[in-house]
Amino acid sequence: MRVSKFFMPVLRDAPREAEIVSHRLMLRAGMIRQSGAGIYSWLPTGLRVLDNISRIVREEQDRAGAIELLMPTLQSADLWRESGRYDAYGAEMLRITDRHKREMLYGPTNEELITQIFRDGAHSYRDVPRTLYHIQWKFRDEIRPRFGVMRGREFLMKDAYSFDLTPEDAKKSFNRQFVAYLRTFERMGLTAIPMQAETGPIGGDLSYEFIILAKTGESEVFCHRDLLDLKAPENVDYDSDLEPLMAPWLEKYAATEDVHDAARFADEVPQDRQVSARGIEVGQVFLFGTKYSDPMKCQVQGRDGKLVTLHSGSYGIGVSRLVGAIIEASHDERGIVWPASVAPFKVGLVNLKAGDSATDKACESLYEQLDNAGLSVLYDDTGERAGAKFKTMDLIGLPWQVIVGPRGVKAGLVELKNRASGETTEIGIDEVVNRLVATQTG
Amino acid sequence: MRVSKFFMPVLRDAPREAEIVSHRLMLRAGMIRQSGAGIYSWLPTGLRVLDNISRIVREEQDRAGAIELLMPTLQSADLWRESGRYDAYGAEMLRITDRHKREMLYGPTNEELITQIFRDGAHSYRDVPRTLYHIQWKFRDEIRPRFGVMRGREFLMKDAYSFDLTPEDAKKSFNRQFVAYLRTFERMGLTAIPMQAETGPIGGDLSYEFIILAKTGESEVFCHRDLLDLKAPENVDYDSDLEPLMAPWLEKYAATEDVHDAARFADEVPQDRQVSARGIEVGQVFLFGTKYSDPMKCQVQGRDGKLVTLHSGSYGIGVSRLVGAIIEASHDERGIVWPASVAPFKVGLVNLKAGDSATDKACESLYEQLDNAGLSVLYDDTGERAGAKFKTMDLIGLPWQVIVGPRGVKAGLVELKNRASGETTEIGIDEVVNRLVATQTG
Repeated sequence: MRVSKFFMPVLRDAPREAEIVSHRLMLRAGMIRQSGAGIYSWLPTGLRVLDNISRIVREEQDRAGAIELLMPTLQSADLWRESGRYDAYGAEMLRITDRHKREMLYGPTNEELITQIFRDGAHSYRDVPRTLYHIQWKFRDEIRPRFGVMRGREFLMKDAYSFDLTPEDAKKSFNRQFVAYLRTFERMGLTAIPMQAETGPIGGDLSYEFIILAKTGESEVFCHRDLLDLKAPENVDYDSDLEPLMAPWLEKYAATEDVHDAARFADEVPQDRQVSARGIEVGQVFLFGTKYSDPMKCQVQGRDGKLVTLHSGSYGIGVSRLVGAIIEASHDERGIVWPASVAPFKVGLVNLKAGDSATDKACESLYEQLDNAGLSVLYDDTGERAGAKFKTMDLIGLPWQVIVGPRGVKAGLVELKNRASGETTEIGIDEVVNRLVATQTG
Repeated sequence: MRVSKFFMPVLRDAPREAEIVSHRLMLRAGMIRQSGAGIYSWLPTGLRVLDNISRIVREEQDRAGAIELLMPTLQSADLWRESGRYDAYGAEMLRITDRHKREMLYGPTNEELITQIFRDGAHSYRDVPRTLYHIQWKFRDEIRPRFGVMRGREFLMKDAYSFDLTPEDAKKSFNRQFVAYLRTFERMGLTAIPMQAETGPIGGDLSYEFIILAKTGESEVFCHRDLLDLKAPENVDYDSDLEPLMAPWLEKYAATEDVHDAARFADEVPQDRQVSARGIEVGQVFLFGTKYSDPMKCQVQGRDGKLVTLHSGSYGIGVSRLVGAIIEASHDERGIVWPASVAPFKVGLVNLKAGDSATDKACESLYEQLDNAGLSVLYDDTGERAGAKFKTMDLIGLPWQVIVGPRGVKAGLVELKNRASGETTEIGIDEVVNRLVATQTG
């Protein structure tokens, strides 16, 4: 993409309304614009990150055997009356009346709707187990939306729902999502720790929140420091017993403030390994059994011909919130530092003297070569002065910058800068593509 | 994907509520389920088609130089008051009030919001021309939603918006979308004819609807038969003058009933080339100049330092409607006949004797080979009887079926069936992959 044909309205100054660093940087980098209280438009750079995060979530869901579908944003109030949640949900549910005076709502979550769909489509024990997921916009009418996309009202969520014959099978489906979450967040460069949590309005008696540590986190969390160093399992066989893979996370103390047990914490965790910090929730998993399938009669015929009520769980990932969370975890005083896997472009190509024919020619050639090698490039081909170009590149945080000027071109050299470390090296213009292909990790 | 682990609840009988063939087939094939009046959930097979259509739309938009972003589903009423459309839009606009009594709406289209975004982000003549697009869910509170996804209330639309300094430049942006549309629809196997149309609530004085002919079309259309045989331009240079490429479509008579001129039609089109038929609108393009940028003050600084009010157009494609429209154009008495480019899977692999170890082994091997060759496969590995499997495969309409039975396996042969022609041929089990790779057109 050429900057001269792109739409990335960067701001020189931090907007006053932004209280936390991710919100400030997303506005300054031209990733989002507020379209209403807690409602954002995703400008091209922001959308590219959002799409990269969705892609990673999708790949790991698919790997874990979950099947993608797509439920609508609006749901009927009657459906929520079947579960008894319509009146219980409170003011965060956005209630809507259509031209025929039918009551609807903008879905804040989808347990009822997926249970209805599965009930109508599954009839026999052969139709389970299944885990279905979608990535769709949700709405929660927060009384005080803030922190940009971290606590917006219209937000993008991946929510999965599992259906099983028995509680034991349901636990296996739960485990598959648990392990998929470990992998998903690690691929985004995050250290997300599963912590016991309250189940809230979703219900059930087993729930973990996946939490990343950040100063701007909304809640206080407590855990064993060893949890920060664990590596997510690779090459997972999702048909195998996953509990041994999960054990390292479950053996050590980790809890959100809602369920924190100070005595147990002091008892189980040596003082020098105690972490008490602020945390950002990026996902939550629930095992709630028959909470929805009971009232909604979600049943299939068992092997013995008798009807069996299905056991379920639900599994959320805050896709749009993750964009903010990743920035909270990865930035410096100059701007965002994107992990390669989610960066809007892998490489920023800076032409230091647009209009100089040798420099233009070298840049065009690099742009084409990098593109052919499958590396996404943002090419700053504008007439802006060099200082402003450097500032913008640091602000938007692409993993690599390739800086091309007339003197270097004459000598066959360009500057390669690693955004995270700040290191710059002069390398031969012919080596750039191979060097960058070799560093590809995302 | 294995049928034994998938979620594709096919129905043996046509549901009574479905009036047209695409709606009946989408329900029977387990592609969608109604979740409310004019509101549908997209089950896995349906979502795969929807995603394929979105992908083609996106590729052709990107090629034409349009830039993707994503605006939210909900918009503020105040924004629509800036253009004067809030009160004018009528009962089709779904109006919403939040917990703080703020008036909002579920966007039926996005001229106001994109004009606000562009106004805030663009400042100079160097920031134009730009065409921005998004693919997002919209809502129109139709008084009588029907025909399934063809006339739903919550629907997926691609809408693009162009911003230019002069009316002449705006026409060039309009032409780029026009040509992109010709290519987009052709890649989906459709013959879509641009026809002069009324501009309606979007406004402006130049508009074309892109129409495909189908018995179940909602409106009457009139055109020269030659238009049915035109081929979309290939290898388009979008920076060149596109009018010569568009001329074959614009030289011949084509109009929707709203603007039809019977005298001109009789005069310009020889009687044996006159087509009068029903049509389905799959896209519409509008050139409306300063209709929104005037009241909303969307201006940039021109080369001479003076403020210039920008000239715009908007360009819609009904992405979810296209799923139904393609089926209307491509089906037979046994079910859907997908064009390869949008098919949910390219190949259906039918195991005629699941449980027979030689047949299972042959199928598993083919499944893996086809997958490795990049061909998406739906593998029916269930214990259903052969007749039911054939019926389902014909119903869901994958371009190719590979039928594997114990006798064939012994002789090293499988049956290859082309869904569109119905032709079946026996070929060597080792030839299957190469043969199918060679037929790849999508």
